[in-house]
Amino acid sequence: MDYLYRINLINSCSGYKSANLLGTRSNSGKTNVAVFSSVTHIGSNPPLLGFFIRPTTVMRNTYENIRKTGVFTINHIHESIIQDAHHTSAKYPKNVSEFDMTNLQEEYKNGFYAPFVKHAPIQIALEYKEEYHIKANNTKLVVAQITDLYVDHSILGPDGYADLTKAKVAAINGLDGYTIPVLKDRMEYQRPKKSNAFKK
Amino acid sequence: MDYLYRINLINSCSGYKSANLLGTRSNSGKTNVAVFSSVTHIGSNPPLLGFFIRPTTVMRNTYENIRKTGVFTINHIHESIIQDAHHTSAKYPKNVSEFDMTNLQEEYKNGFYAPFVKHAPIQIALEYKEEYHIKANNTKLVVAQITDLYVDHSILGPDGYADLTKAKVAAINGLDGYTIPVLKDRMEYQRPKKSNAFKK
Repeated sequence: MDYLYRINLINSCSGYKSANLLGTRSNSGKTNVAVFSSVTHIGSNPPLLGFFIRPTTVMRNTYENIRKTGVFTINHIHESIIQDAHHTSAKYPKNVSEFDMTNLQEEYKNGFYAPFVKHAPIQIALEYKEEYHIKANNTKLVVAQITDLYVDHSILGPDGYADLTKAKVAAINGLDGYTIPVLKDRMEYQRPKKSNAFKK
Repeated sequence: MDYLYRINLINSCSGYKSANLLGTRSNSGKTNVAVFSSVTHIGSNPPLLGFFIRPTTVMRNTYENIRKTGVFTINHIHESIIQDAHHTSAKYPKNVSEFDMTNLQEEYKNGFYAPFVKHAPIQIALEYKEEYHIKANNTKLVVAQITDLYVDHSILGPDGYADLTKAKVAAINGLDGYTIPVLKDRMEYQRPKKSNAFKK
């Protein structure tokens, strides 16, 4: 299998991925924003998210800022900013902020050090907690705890469910496919059936 | 925040999640199939996927079978099987197979010990590689390597991109929201811009 075929196939086959912009800021104040598709829910109490990072990629600026300042933001990618969001994957030198090279705008809230992405329908402030070195391929899992959460009220239900389909945020397919999901159904909590007489 | 509000909110806020059925089989031959929303791409070479598991949940049957046999399958959830897929989250005793309590069907291929879900547009055979105990909330990250991959030819592009929107597979929002994504755009590989004169 050639290189590009392999990475397209393997990146597509795990299923849809979250589409997020990670915002960080160096100790000297230089901002950075980068697209990630590996942000994953780890637990609700405490509220933990994780993401995978390959230390050798362009995303290492994000990682270095997180390790030095202890904080970062996660911002959902609305369909209107897909082009700019994807452009943050370009390999800029460390002294160039992707906020300056796109129309993405920095926003600061409640004294949090790292920049949010303005107008993102969900903005999350996080603190670094732990990391794990994945031996199998020399990557890292970074685990972080949510400290503040800003959700557009128009998508938030009375039971706490944030309806991402109302927010028109993207889900990523593979390396470069941006999709917009449509709600099919919310399911009930499932209890065991008494019998399987229904089986076809 | 009350319990249900918190878990709905925190489970929604990380973004869309993959929708997969994990198929396993005990040493004595009893099959198990369970819905997971935390399967994440870890790397392409070697081809690695990971998922998170809380040892105390109903999903521990899946984990026990994987540890004892070393293998499992990942199968994408087509929109036509969402009800049955979600039902696998019900707490059945260990001696009941979810294949018997739903219309999901087992399929065996190339002598692989664990069952695939028949008709799933993407079916993946995996071998257990490693696990990491996440101290922050006492969960585990399981890392596994893809050994075989079956992709419906109608969704596979010449460059290896598997178009999940053509396969009508689900993405999960929160604990119980099933969505069907629509392709918006595939983006080009991004190179740095020479100037930011375009800025609004």
